[in-house]
Amino acid sequence: RLHRIACIPGDGIGVDITDAAIRVLTTLSSTLGGFEFDFTTFDWSSDNYLSRGYYMPSDGLSQLRAFDAIYFGAVGSPAVPDHISLWSLILPIRKALNQYVNVRPTRMLQGVKSPLGECATEDLDWVIVRENSEGEYSGQGGVSHEDTAHAVATEVSVFTQVGIERIMRFAFETAKGRPRKKLTMVTKSNAQRHGKFPHLIPTEESVLGGFFLVAHGGLGMVLWDKVFYEVAKDYPDVEIDKMLVDAMTVRMVLHPKTLDTIVATNLHADILSDLAAALSGSIGIAPSSNLDPTRANPSMFEPIHGSAPDIAGKGIANPVGAFWSAAEMVRWVGEEKAADGLMKAIENVTARGVKTKDLGGSEDTKGVTDAVCQEIEDL
Amino acid sequence: RLHRIACIPGDGIGVDITDAAIRVLTTLSSTLGGFEFDFTTFDWSSDNYLSRGYYMPSDGLSQLRAFDAIYFGAVGSPAVPDHISLWSLILPIRKALNQYVNVRPTRMLQGVKSPLGECATEDLDWVIVRENSEGEYSGQGGVSHEDTAHAVATEVSVFTQVGIERIMRFAFETAKGRPRKKLTMVTKSNAQRHGKFPHLIPTEESVLGGFFLVAHGGLGMVLWDKVFYEVAKDYPDVEIDKMLVDAMTVRMVLHPKTLDTIVATNLHADILSDLAAALSGSIGIAPSSNLDPTRANPSMFEPIHGSAPDIAGKGIANPVGAFWSAAEMVRWVGEEKAADGLMKAIENVTARGVKTKDLGGSEDTKGVTDAVCQEIEDL
Ligand SMILES: CC(C)[C@H](C(=O)O)[C@@H](O)C(=O)O
Ligand SMILES: CC(C)[C@H](C(=O)O)[C@@H](O)C(=O)O
Repeated sequence: RLHRIACIPGDGIGVDITDAAIRVLTTLSSTLGGFEFDFTTFDWSSDNYLSRGYYMPSDGLSQLRAFDAIYFGAVGSPAVPDHISLWSLILPIRKALNQYVNVRPTRMLQGVKSPLGECATEDLDWVIVRENSEGEYSGQGGVSHEDTAHAVATEVSVFTQVGIERIMRFAFETAKGRPRKKLTMVTKSNAQRHGKFPHLIPTEESVLGGFFLVAHGGLGMVLWDKVFYEVAKDYPDVEIDKMLVDAMTVRMVLHPKTLDTIVATNLHADILSDLAAALSGSIGIAPSSNLDPTRANPSMFEPIHGSAPDIAGKGIANPVGAFWSAAEMVRWVGEEKAADGLMKAIENVTARGVKTKDLGGSEDTKGVTDAVCQEIEDL
Repeated sequence: RLHRIACIPGDGIGVDITDAAIRVLTTLSSTLGGFEFDFTTFDWSSDNYLSRGYYMPSDGLSQLRAFDAIYFGAVGSPAVPDHISLWSLILPIRKALNQYVNVRPTRMLQGVKSPLGECATEDLDWVIVRENSEGEYSGQGGVSHEDTAHAVATEVSVFTQVGIERIMRFAFETAKGRPRKKLTMVTKSNAQRHGKFPHLIPTEESVLGGFFLVAHGGLGMVLWDKVFYEVAKDYPDVEIDKMLVDAMTVRMVLHPKTLDTIVATNLHADILSDLAAALSGSIGIAPSSNLDPTRANPSMFEPIHGSAPDIAGKGIANPVGAFWSAAEMVRWVGEEKAADGLMKAIENVTARGVKTKDLGGSEDTKGVTDAVCQEIEDL
């Protein structure tokens, strides 16, 4: 079985860890046999943007569509404003290739310690399902009166019934497939209402100083919450609850054991998944899968960490998040057994204490990569 | 000196902890002398909303304007949807009384343990300055095609030059007044651009599959970031840095010592201040001050925790956040020495291990309140 993989190392440590991931994947296929990877590398980076004027060529997305999966390193450079680099590369890929789900598992790897004083390995085992196509990342908005003292900027979050329903279904399926069958929905519907509000009508007096006339009836939940409860009806075996995003951070820190599968909007999940990675030891270990569950387009796999310009090219980046992301890719293209093997190899290595500095170890990228390749050969 | 205080206990444990705070404040003034509080209690609650149809009477905000300060317990009830209770009480007060700053200090109180395994008392000492009047809480937006399969909801964040500038100035002044003179600005300008984007023009091809034409020039930062750097010029003695909100959670967990004063938007700061409270031991200890720095309107002081319906009326709520909020109020109305005394009394009590269950102790609300009153008398 041949799997064609598009590799976009991108910027900074994205290059270091993509190299490492390709080595590990090659070792995996040659050791286990029965399948092969054909890697094609794309030099779409901030450096090349600065010399050429673009990240992707005009047929970039079409080129990607020809692959079975995309492996992404990182994007971001001190020389290019973030909102250019990101909106020119990672965000257009997610959107155009219909990768409307971003799956971000977090758990304590063997041999890795949580910064939480009292967190056992089995206490933290979550999957965050992130809406990846709309919400706060819709890119709508603008500035009026720019560069004046009365400038006004708006940013419009767009939520659709279709967009919410598909992410909720994916989240429920994920929860259903896990032993605890528990799904926590994250929202901020109390303050961000994104919905019409027929039952709360400010009167003239409210402007002058104080009265909100509350009309009864029509008390629908806001769209995100509402669709969650609608979809929940199809999953009576999944235990559900709802958390406000601010209170969710408290629960993650103080009661990690009570959480399992989590579904959240694009921005909320972005924040919570970084927090989750930190609580599991380091942002350097966490993987992410940008999925088009319809499989009409290739899905994209990337560690959740960024390009870390401060340590780029020094050979010291933690490659574990890259390897774990690679394992998720291997699973997505159908090589379940190889994915399990790779995860086992990674955990054998962390368990032995072969770790980079961010995890309290003293190895470099190559040291950890060598060790993982060795473990694969010993599987 | 007489200070007229409007008390709004609100819902759930808001009632328990407001009672406790009034007792402590009364003990404070009678023990120290030289000033007095005149408390007027308003029964604006979800229960009364259910029977009367409104939270505040039509002249509610005008009534509040007559006071020197407002003490707020909590609002939220299982019997009323959050977006009604909040938009009928706490949010209109913040907005109408021009309380555009929300100050949320976090530090390790004596005798309180952080859930972070390796966090010494001096490692965590932050002030989060929250924009409290606009941004994600602007309340604009609506639903089209409601209750159909193609429903679309929008939520509009509104940022203004005036709104950003005044919160940035307050944050810089706060940072300047603290020993380390360090201000970290939180943003997500890479993905949420809230601004026009003249330099990135999607061409027809971008829709068809892939190309973003990048025009050079006009690379202004988005408004929030831009105003931050403008205001920074007036504060050359304050050391600044910028963090993306997702990465900020990682830094708070893994490198708490590197942070001091923090400025963030309404939603970002809402999330980060809950996280901060959890990292400092419990959501039950954290205070907040909703300030109108112009002093044209009374400011409002409230613990950051909510109404906690599950433990309401049981007499077991942690009153420390309420006392700390009261101390901030005492300071705001000009009784510096009394404020210091109250903080000392609170910390003497936590240091002695007189704590509620959320902090690992075994006391109830009354026990902690008695102990704080005793400490005040012993000051
Ligand atoms: C790079 C950035 C656009 C991105 C995001 O916000 O989605 C990153 O933080 C992530 O979590 O994948
Ligand atoms: C009650 C709610 C509206 C509020 C907010 O989001 O501002 C609360 O979470 C807070 O932090 O004060």
